[in-house]
Amino acid sequence: MNETTPAGTTINGVSPQQRTVEETLTATVLASFDNCADPRLKQLMQALTRHLHAFIREVRLTEAEWETAIGFLTAAGHLTDDKRQEFILLSDVLGASMMTVAVNNEAHADATEATVFGPFFAEDAPEIPIGGDIAGSATGQPCWVEGTVTDIDGRPVPNARIEVWEADDDGFYDAQYTDGRVAGRAHLFADAQGTYSFWGLTPTPYPIPHDGPVGAMLASVGRSPVRASHLHFMVTAPGLRTLVTHIFVTGDPQLEIGDSVFGVKDSLIKDFHPQPAGTPTPDGRDLAGQDWARTRFDIVLAPANTGS
Amino acid sequence: MNETTPAGTTINGVSPQQRTVEETLTATVLASFDNCADPRLKQLMQALTRHLHAFIREVRLTEAEWETAIGFLTAAGHLTDDKRQEFILLSDVLGASMMTVAVNNEAHADATEATVFGPFFAEDAPEIPIGGDIAGSATGQPCWVEGTVTDIDGRPVPNARIEVWEADDDGFYDAQYTDGRVAGRAHLFADAQGTYSFWGLTPTPYPIPHDGPVGAMLASVGRSPVRASHLHFMVTAPGLRTLVTHIFVTGDPQLEIGDSVFGVKDSLIKDFHPQPAGTPTPDGRDLAGQDWARTRFDIVLAPANTGS
Repeated sequence: MNETTPAGTTINGVSPQQRTVEETLTATVLASFDNCADPRLKQLMQALTRHLHAFIREVRLTEAEWETAIGFLTAAGHLTDDKRQEFILLSDVLGASMMTVAVNNEAHADATEATVFGPFFAEDAPEIPIGGDIAGSATGQPCWVEGTVTDIDGRPVPNARIEVWEADDDGFYDAQYTDGRVAGRAHLFADAQGTYSFWGLTPTPYPIPHDGPVGAMLASVGRSPVRASHLHFMVTAPGLRTLVTHIFVTGDPQLEIGDSVFGVKDSLIKDFHPQPAGTPTPDGRDLAGQDWARTRFDIVLAPANTGS
Repeated sequence: MNETTPAGTTINGVSPQQRTVEETLTATVLASFDNCADPRLKQLMQALTRHLHAFIREVRLTEAEWETAIGFLTAAGHLTDDKRQEFILLSDVLGASMMTVAVNNEAHADATEATVFGPFFAEDAPEIPIGGDIAGSATGQPCWVEGTVTDIDGRPVPNARIEVWEADDDGFYDAQYTDGRVAGRAHLFADAQGTYSFWGLTPTPYPIPHDGPVGAMLASVGRSPVRASHLHFMVTAPGLRTLVTHIFVTGDPQLEIGDSVFGVKDSLIKDFHPQPAGTPTPDGRDLAGQDWARTRFDIVLAPANTGS
């Protein structure tokens, strides 16, 4: 059999004449960007056109499906405001956000992996001392988190800035409440030996907002809107690459079901050890008969010049 | 040189380890659709994911560029309402609308080519007799349009229904005025021999709405928002494929500059012959000293079972 395609061959039911029509159209649209003065913008628009056209051709998109897509984008646009960002959710559930994180945080064999930033970081989180508590009024099981910050050669990173934030056990970040509370978030600095610790809350699963078109899409394809339980970190230090990541919880059933935004990496799944009520705390804190948990997250920062 | 890629090779600056991270992410997102009960929806979502991820990986999309894209979609969504559809414009200027038309109207060697439907068709356009006038209150140069409707074997299609619509010489369709006018649109029926004629207006160029994010994008890449001058047709007859198309005007400078939505096909460019004031009209109509034009458009309908 000849591996090349004879010019007159019908492929997947598409005639040679039809292929020419489609290829000519793509070439015409690509050429329309030829005069773009910004080479990067030109590259982006031409690549977008190529991939978009290839998608339509591959699936033989029907006109009714095209209308559904327009209707989906329209509904997403109308739902989006300064509190709700349906297009980011769409990017998240298609793995586009996570892929963007991936291409901007080149894998480094020895460094802690990055994951999605999410929409709930706040610049002005309060500072706490080492061993302090980020929870504020956020409810949940107290959790002792400790670890080190080092570079890829194992050298401690003194005074690294560590931002941490998380949802409460009702599945909400402070910003999702209307009362202006600041809770479940803080920043602290590693000590001179690069060690840190704080009290947070054992993470619990929660759904992304799923009462809009993205939620309807997830339902129609049989996917869960729930995120795997996680605790957010952003770690910065001079001369080292800023790390935006989460840690996940060993045994969380959502790890099997699938994280709705594809943020999980095996290296980021940590054991959260349950501690029965009355177990002495590392810092002697009296938890008034509550059970608690403890975990360890040793952070390794890549050199600042790694990746893009 | 070995044509295969050794596993350890860095390609375009992307390390093998990084490629694995990216390929694993795409595989995970694709697998998330595995339980979709609707096989067509599953195919669409998986293909969309593959092409979207391939785009992000190919261009190494930066996080700032991702934010620009989210902002673009948000602005498009906020501009879109029941009168303005920025997402359709976006699809149009990227050639996605025209590609969707193409894959749904398989090229047929002997039939008239299809092009974009556009947003300005109305179901309830008035009926005119053969030789009637579609213009109503729409202004412009009178233009006599005549032709035949046949099948691909050259047999006349008696009584074919012909919908025609166009902008006035200010570049606006009736629906773009707020006074509820019906002008520049009508339907008529070919006679028993498949011939038809009507008075319309010589088409003139006009821009798509370009005061929004799509217009800003076109400006930033150096593209014109102007559509090549055209007159819309939709032709239907029992047992034959419905034809949605335009005719364009030989010599229109926009044909060289480029139609902003990529609707032009060479076979659809027609000579519009100018007629000096006082030239006798085909039907004896007195144009009161106006100059006019005439053109011919012979329409060939494909069998109804052609294409998708």
